[in-house]
Amino acid sequence: MRTVAVVGGGLIGTSIGMDLHACGVRVHVIDRDPVTQAVAAERCRGYEGAPPEPADLAVIAVPPGAVAPVLREWQSRGLARCYTDVASAKESVHRAATAAGCALDAFVGGHPMAGSERPGPYAARAGLFTGRPWVLTPDRHTGTAALSAALALVEACGARLVVMGRAEHDRAVATTSHAPHVVASALASAVGAAPQEVVELCGAGIRDATRIAAGETGLWSDILGSNASAVAAALEPLITELTDALVQLRAVAGAPPGTPPRALAGLLDRGGEGRARIMTAQPAAAPAPPPVAVPSYA
Amino acid sequence: MRTVAVVGGGLIGTSIGMDLHACGVRVHVIDRDPVTQAVAAERCRGYEGAPPEPADLAVIAVPPGAVAPVLREWQSRGLARCYTDVASAKESVHRAATAAGCALDAFVGGHPMAGSERPGPYAARAGLFTGRPWVLTPDRHTGTAALSAALALVEACGARLVVMGRAEHDRAVATTSHAPHVVASALASAVGAAPQEVVELCGAGIRDATRIAAGETGLWSDILGSNASAVAAALEPLITELTDALVQLRAVAGAPPGTPPRALAGLLDRGGEGRARIMTAQPAAAPAPPPVAVPSYA
Repeated sequence: MRTVAVVGGGLIGTSIGMDLHACGVRVHVIDRDPVTQAVAAERCRGYEGAPPEPADLAVIAVPPGAVAPVLREWQSRGLARCYTDVASAKESVHRAATAAGCALDAFVGGHPMAGSERPGPYAARAGLFTGRPWVLTPDRHTGTAALSAALALVEACGARLVVMGRAEHDRAVATTSHAPHVVASALASAVGAAPQEVVELCGAGIRDATRIAAGETGLWSDILGSNASAVAAALEPLITELTDALVQLRAVAGAPPGTPPRALAGLLDRGGEGRARIMTAQPAAAPAPPPVAVPSYA
Repeated sequence: MRTVAVVGGGLIGTSIGMDLHACGVRVHVIDRDPVTQAVAAERCRGYEGAPPEPADLAVIAVPPGAVAPVLREWQSRGLARCYTDVASAKESVHRAATAAGCALDAFVGGHPMAGSERPGPYAARAGLFTGRPWVLTPDRHTGTAALSAALALVEACGARLVVMGRAEHDRAVATTSHAPHVVASALASAVGAAPQEVVELCGAGIRDATRIAAGETGLWSDILGSNASAVAAALEPLITELTDALVQLRAVAGAPPGTPPRALAGLLDRGGEGRARIMTAQPAAAPAPPPVAVPSYA
């Protein structure tokens, strides 16, 4: 793999470009915003705009709802021989790409499982994907060349390859990432609506619990909408669990005086076990270095 | 303040003892578990058991449901001239202490807003409360001596004094700490029940979102039960919010093809604003040092 085009100079696209550059790959960065394109190209020591000859691979690093039209456009312009994406919803991207008439033998869906609540090329860093899962969702229509190119990309980024079906992937990330994002937003929203003296009591617990709620609304609205069915399916049992907790808490609140005030031990036990399981997952890469200073254009 | 008795050698009691020792106060540690008492006393360079003369202050550092009986017992034995506690529910502690016949003029309710998901005296550290809010809930029955002693304790621990009513406190921590704990437990429980390949996709987001779910079931069952009414009141609008999100997601999932797949922008915006407000709260003290090695008793 000698030349890769990255379409979309955000956090993920730029971080991929930085890793590819470190492996000696020639990187071309394309973004509809000229400033983002320039910054992203500079950060991965690449080139702005499409290469003169088709690249070995194009990485479509745009929000899920934009993948199909962007893929269609660049396939028709012959940007690369093979294509992959990084969107966190795979069924809806595949449906839209099929409907748009994309050449699907030259495309394999991908999802590197790393990120940051900070968006854009300045938040990018080399090594973001080191040791992290990178899901690929090939099917029987996927061509060997596209799969090989995607595998080379995963390897160049030092990620851990995971092959899954699209629906299986979508259900998994709904549970581990998308539904938690909705819940974190609801928690943060509730604290945000509270009086100032309540906000001042916030500690490390609520900070950690709501960190992901800092993500961009535009991107996350697209992600949740693109995986709406699986996110709804993951959210429903959470709501049932919380409603059950509410009923138990009301029973305790209404219990006669002297009753030992204990509640929700079953949920807390299961939560502790789930937490322990979550901590067995492959550890993330080393902590991020301080962010690059963002120059002012004012 | 020259002598303080700490009843309960857990994370909070021991951390308080360490700060008091650093201020030159003579610390006596009492715990029903002899090993915990010995470790806690050693960690705050204090003494095991009650002092020969009444202490200036006794800090009842036990779970909320145990405060009233423990306070009653030690008041009857003359452990100290004044008493405070550290429980994160103040109405139920006050009700139980009243019912138990405690001397309430010698007691002021307190709640230092710092902690860790790791329990016990080995997780304790000096400076845990530095710069953190420490709520006191005096009322018109509170004696001047008890209030003065509690104020000296807050100052010795370098905390930021916040005076609130008991009900106001309970509502505030239900929003910022107790309801988020229930939600984090539900999230962790859902991931814990998923197949192993789902767990392996977990990243930093779900780790942070579920960190507090690692807390001890016994302690948290007591906390949630002791503040059941306020936690239920905080949980109810969260459930409404999530149910509303579920309805919106289903509408998006059922929308005709070609509809831009965007969802929940209002919730995500409010979540982002709430998150920004949470981050304006007084920063926590410096990050915790690595935990003290726990010797094996096996």
